[in-house]
Amino acid sequence: MDDTTPGTPALDPAIAAQLRRNAQGLVPAVVQQYDTGEVLMLAWMDDEALRRTLTTGRATYWSRSRAEYWVKGATSGNFQAVKSVALDCDGDTVLVKVDQSGPACHTGTRTCFEGRELPLGDG
Amino acid sequence: MDDTTPGTPALDPAIAAQLRRNAQGLVPAVVQQYDTGEVLMLAWMDDEALRRTLTTGRATYWSRSRAEYWVKGATSGNFQAVKSVALDCDGDTVLVKVDQSGPACHTGTRTCFEGRELPLGDG
Repeated sequence: MDDTTPGTPALDPAIAAQLRRNAQGLVPAVVQQYDTGEVLMLAWMDDEALRRTLTTGRATYWSRSRAEYWVKGATSGNFQAVKSVALDCDGDTVLVKVDQSGPACHTGTRTCFEGRELPLGDG
Repeated sequence: MDDTTPGTPALDPAIAAQLRRNAQGLVPAVVQQYDTGEVLMLAWMDDEALRRTLTTGRATYWSRSRAEYWVKGATSGNFQAVKSVALDCDGDTVLVKVDQSGPACHTGTRTCFEGRELPLGDG
Protein backbone atom coordinates (compact mmCIF):
# COMPACT_ATOMS: atom_id res chain seq x y z
CA MET A 1 0.00 0.00 0.00
CA ASP A 2 3.02 2.25 0.07
CA ASP A 3 3.60 1.92 -3.65
CA THR A 4 2.61 4.52 -6.13
CA THR A 5 1.48 2.46 -9.06
CA PRO A 6 1.29 3.84 -12.58
CA GLY A 7 -2.06 5.47 -13.12
CA THR A 8 -2.41 6.49 -9.49
CA PRO A 9 -3.94 9.96 -9.39
CA ALA A 10 -1.49 12.73 -8.62
CA LEU A 11 -2.00 15.72 -6.40
CA ASP A 12 -4.05 18.43 -8.12
CA PRO A 13 -1.46 20.36 -10.17
CA ALA A 14 -2.98 23.65 -9.02
CA ILE A 15 -2.18 22.67 -5.43
CA ALA A 16 1.19 21.16 -6.27
CA ALA A 17 2.19 24.44 -7.94
CA GLN A 18 1.65 26.30 -4.66
CA LEU A 19 3.84 24.00 -2.55
CA ARG A 20 7.30 25.12 -1.51
CA ARG A 21 8.98 21.89 -0.48
CA ASN A 22 12.27 21.46 1.37
CA ALA A 23 15.29 19.71 -0.12
CA GLN A 24 13.68 16.35 0.71
CA GLY A 25 10.48 17.27 -1.14
CA LEU A 26 8.55 17.69 2.11
CA VAL A 27 6.53 20.33 3.92
CA PRO A 28 5.82 20.36 7.66
CA ALA A 29 2.24 19.63 8.65
CA VAL A 30 0.94 21.17 11.86
CA VAL A 31 -1.79 18.93 13.22
CA GLN A 32 -4.51 20.49 15.35
CA GLN A 33 -7.59 19.11 17.07
CA TYR A 34 -10.38 20.87 15.18
CA ASP A 35 -12.68 21.68 18.11
CA THR A 36 -10.42 22.26 21.12
CA GLY A 37 -7.59 23.90 19.16
CA GLU A 38 -4.92 21.71 20.77
CA VAL A 39 -1.78 21.44 18.66
CA LEU A 40 -1.34 17.68 18.63
CA MET A 41 1.91 17.10 16.72
CA LEU A 42 4.01 18.08 13.74
CA ALA A 43 4.60 15.66 10.88
CA TRP A 44 5.82 15.83 7.28
CA MET A 45 4.11 15.43 3.93
CA ASP A 46 5.16 15.05 0.35
CA ASP A 47 2.73 15.62 -2.51
CA GLU A 48 1.33 12.10 -2.29
CA ALA A 49 0.79 12.24 1.48
CA LEU A 50 -1.09 15.50 0.99
CA ARG A 51 -3.16 13.96 -1.80
CA ARG A 52 -4.07 10.99 0.40
CA THR A 53 -4.91 13.28 3.32
CA LEU A 54 -7.20 15.39 1.12
CA THR A 55 -8.92 12.47 -0.56
CA THR A 56 -9.14 9.66 2.01
CA GLY A 57 -10.22 11.65 5.06
CA ARG A 58 -7.44 10.06 7.12
CA ALA A 59 -4.34 12.11 7.91
CA THR A 60 -1.39 10.56 6.11
CA TYR A 61 2.24 11.59 6.44
CA TRP A 62 5.66 10.72 5.13
CA SER A 63 7.71 9.01 7.82
CA ARG A 64 11.24 10.33 7.54
CA SER A 65 12.60 7.64 9.86
CA ARG A 66 10.89 4.74 8.11
CA ALA A 67 10.88 6.31 4.63
CA GLU A 68 7.30 5.28 3.96
CA TYR A 69 3.77 6.64 3.95
CA TRP A 70 2.21 6.55 7.36
CA VAL A 71 -1.53 6.62 7.97
CA LYS A 72 -1.66 7.99 11.49
CA GLY A 73 -3.42 5.34 13.59
CA ALA A 74 -2.85 2.44 11.21
CA THR A 75 -0.95 0.57 13.89
CA SER A 76 -2.13 2.31 17.08
CA GLY A 77 -5.79 2.70 16.14
CA ASN A 78 -5.50 6.39 16.99
CA PHE A 79 -6.67 7.71 13.64
CA GLN A 80 -7.04 11.33 12.66
CA ALA A 81 -10.25 12.15 10.79
CA VAL A 82 -9.48 15.11 8.54
CA LYS A 83 -11.73 18.14 9.03
CA SER A 84 -9.83 20.73 6.98
CA VAL A 85 -6.46 21.35 5.37
CA ALA A 86 -4.95 24.76 4.64
CA LEU A 87 -1.70 25.97 3.12
CA ASP A 88 0.09 28.93 4.60
CA CYS A 89 0.78 32.22 2.84
CA ASP A 90 4.00 31.08 1.19
CA GLY A 91 3.04 27.45 0.60
CA ASP A 92 5.69 25.88 2.79
CA THR A 93 3.52 24.67 5.68
CA VAL A 94 0.23 22.78 5.92
CA LEU A 95 -2.27 23.07 8.76
CA VAL A 96 -4.36 19.93 9.18
CA LYS A 97 -7.37 20.10 11.46
CA VAL A 98 -8.45 16.65 12.60
CA ASP A 99 -10.59 14.77 15.02
CA GLN A 100 -8.01 12.72 16.92
CA SER A 101 -9.03 9.32 18.31
CA GLY A 102 -7.17 8.66 21.55
CA PRO A 103 -3.73 10.08 22.20
CA ALA A 104 -1.82 11.69 19.33
CA CYS A 105 1.57 10.99 20.86
CA HIS A 106 3.30 7.62 20.74
CA THR A 107 4.23 8.19 24.40
CA GLY A 108 0.54 8.06 25.31
CA THR A 109 -0.03 11.74 26.01
CA ARG A 110 -2.85 13.54 24.25
CA THR A 111 -0.46 15.82 22.39
CA CYS A 112 3.26 15.56 21.69
CA PHE A 113 3.85 18.79 23.65
CA GLU A 114 1.96 17.94 26.83
CA GLY A 115 4.01 18.15 30.01
CA ARG A 116 7.08 19.34 28.12
CA GLU A 117 7.11 23.05 28.84
CA LEU A 118 10.42 24.90 29.03
CA PRO A 119 11.11 27.46 31.76
CA LEU A 120 10.72 31.12 30.83
CA GLY A 121 12.80 33.80 32.49
CA ASP A 122 15.97 35.72 32.53
CA GLY A 123 18.04 32.65 31.64
CA MET B 1 21.73 43.17 17.60
CA ASP B 2 22.10 40.12 15.42
CA ASP B 3 25.60 39.42 16.64
CA THR B 4 26.43 36.85 19.20
CA THR B 5 29.19 38.52 21.12
CA PRO B 6 31.65 36.57 23.24
CA GLY B 7 30.24 36.13 26.71
CA THR B 8 26.63 36.14 25.55
CA PRO B 9 24.75 33.54 27.56
CA ALA B 10 24.08 30.32 25.71
CA LEU B 11 20.92 28.25 25.73
CA ASP B 12 20.63 26.15 28.87
CA PRO B 13 22.70 23.01 28.08
CA ALA B 14 19.94 20.81 29.54
CA ILE B 15 17.54 22.20 26.93
CA ALA B 16 20.11 22.20 24.14
CA ALA B 17 20.75 18.52 24.80
CA GLN B 18 17.10 17.74 24.09
CA LEU B 19 16.98 19.50 20.73
CA ARG B 20 17.03 17.51 17.55
CA ARG B 21 17.95 20.06 14.90
CA ASN B 22 17.78 19.67 11.15
CA ALA B 23 20.84 19.86 8.90
CA GLN B 24 20.72 23.65 9.13
CA GLY B 25 20.71 23.56 12.94
CA LEU B 26 17.06 24.57 13.13
CA VAL B 27 13.80 23.29 14.56
CA PRO B 28 10.34 24.33 13.37
CA ALA B 29 8.37 26.48 15.79
CA VAL B 30 4.59 26.26 15.68
CA VAL B 31 3.16 29.55 16.88
CA GLN B 32 -0.25 29.56 18.50
CA GLN B 33 -2.41 32.30 19.99
CA TYR B 34 -2.51 31.26 23.65
CA ASP B 35 -6.17 31.96 24.39
CA THR B 36 -8.07 31.31 21.16
CA GLY B 37 -5.91 28.39 20.05
CA GLU B 38 -5.45 29.78 16.54
CA VAL B 39 -2.35 28.46 14.81
CA LEU B 40 -0.81 31.71 13.62
CA MET B 41 2.28 30.68 11.65
CA LEU B 42 5.28 28.40 11.50
CA ALA B 43 8.80 29.74 11.83
CA TRP B 44 12.28 28.36 12.56
CA MET B 45 14.60 28.59 15.54
CA ASP B 46 18.19 27.80 16.27
CA ASP B 47 19.48 27.52 19.84
CA GLU B 48 20.01 31.26 20.15
CA ALA B 49 16.55 32.15 18.84
CA LEU B 50 15.08 29.75 21.37
CA ARG B 51 17.19 31.27 24.14
CA ARG B 52 16.03 34.77 23.22
CA THR B 53 12.41 33.63 23.03
CA LEU B 54 12.64 32.05 26.49
CA THR B 55 14.42 34.94 28.12
CA THR B 56 13.17 38.15 26.45
CA GLY B 57 9.45 37.38 26.35
CA ARG B 58 9.34 38.29 22.66
CA ALA B 59 9.14 35.50 20.10
CA THR B 60 12.35 35.46 18.10
CA TYR B 61 13.11 33.31 15.08
CA TRP B 62 15.85 32.60 12.62
CA SER B 63 14.97 34.02 9.24
CA ARG B 64 16.10 31.51 6.64
CA SER B 65 15.62 33.98 3.79
CA ARG B 66 17.47 36.84 5.45
CA ALA B 67 19.88 34.66 7.47
CA GLU B 68 19.43 36.71 10.63
CA TYR B 69 17.58 36.73 13.92
CA TRP B 70 14.12 38.10 13.60
CA VAL B 71 12.11 39.51 16.49
CA LYS B 72 8.59 39.08 15.21
CA GLY B 73 7.06 42.55 15.12
CA ALA B 74 10.34 44.46 15.15
CA THR B 75 9.46 46.09 11.84
CA SER B 76 5.67 45.62 11.70
CA GLY B 77 4.92 46.35 15.34
CA ASN B 78 2.99 43.08 15.50
CA PHE B 79 4.93 41.57 18.38
CA GLN B 80 4.32 38.20 19.95
CA ALA B 81 4.37 38.19 23.74
CA VAL B 82 5.53 34.74 24.81
CA LYS B 83 3.17 32.88 27.14
CA SER B 84 4.73 29.41 27.07
CA VAL B 85 7.18 27.30 25.11
CA ALA B 86 7.18 23.50 24.92
CA LEU B 87 9.31 20.93 23.14
CA ASP B 88 7.67 17.92 21.56
CA CYS B 89 8.28 14.30 22.55
CA ASP B 90 11.33 13.84 20.37
CA GLY B 91 12.75 17.34 20.65
CA ASP B 92 12.47 18.29 17.01
CA THR B 93 9.60 20.80 17.21
CA VAL B 94 8.79 23.74 19.47
CA LEU B 95 5.30 24.99 20.31
CA VAL B 96 5.25 28.68 21.19
CA LYS B 97 2.08 30.08 22.71
CA VAL B 98 1.92 33.84 22.33
CA ASP B 99 -0.29 36.85 22.59
CA GLN B 100 -0.17 38.22 19.04
CA SER B 101 -0.54 41.96 18.51
CA GLY B 102 -2.35 42.61 15.24
CA PRO B 103 -2.08 40.24 12.31
CA ALA B 104 0.53 37.48 12.40
CA CYS B 105 0.80 37.24 8.63
CA HIS B 106 2.76 39.66 6.48
CA THR B 107 -0.20 39.60 4.08
CA GLY B 108 -2.35 41.23 6.75
CA THR B 109 -4.49 38.26 7.69
CA ARG B 110 -4.72 37.24 11.32
CA THR B 111 -3.01 33.90 10.67
CA CYS B 112 -0.87 32.67 7.78
CA PHE B 113 -3.46 29.96 7.06
CA GLU B 114 -6.59 32.08 6.96
CA GLY B 115 -8.59 31.85 3.73
CA ARG B 116 -6.20 29.27 2.28
CA GLU B 117 -8.14 26.03 2.72
CA LEU B 118 -7.67 23.23 0.21
CA PRO B 119 -10.63 21.26 -1.11
CA LEU B 120 -11.28 17.86 0.47
CA GLY B 121 -12.84 15.07 -1.52
CA ASP B 122 -12.33 12.17 -3.82
CA GLY B 123 -9.76 14.06 -5.85
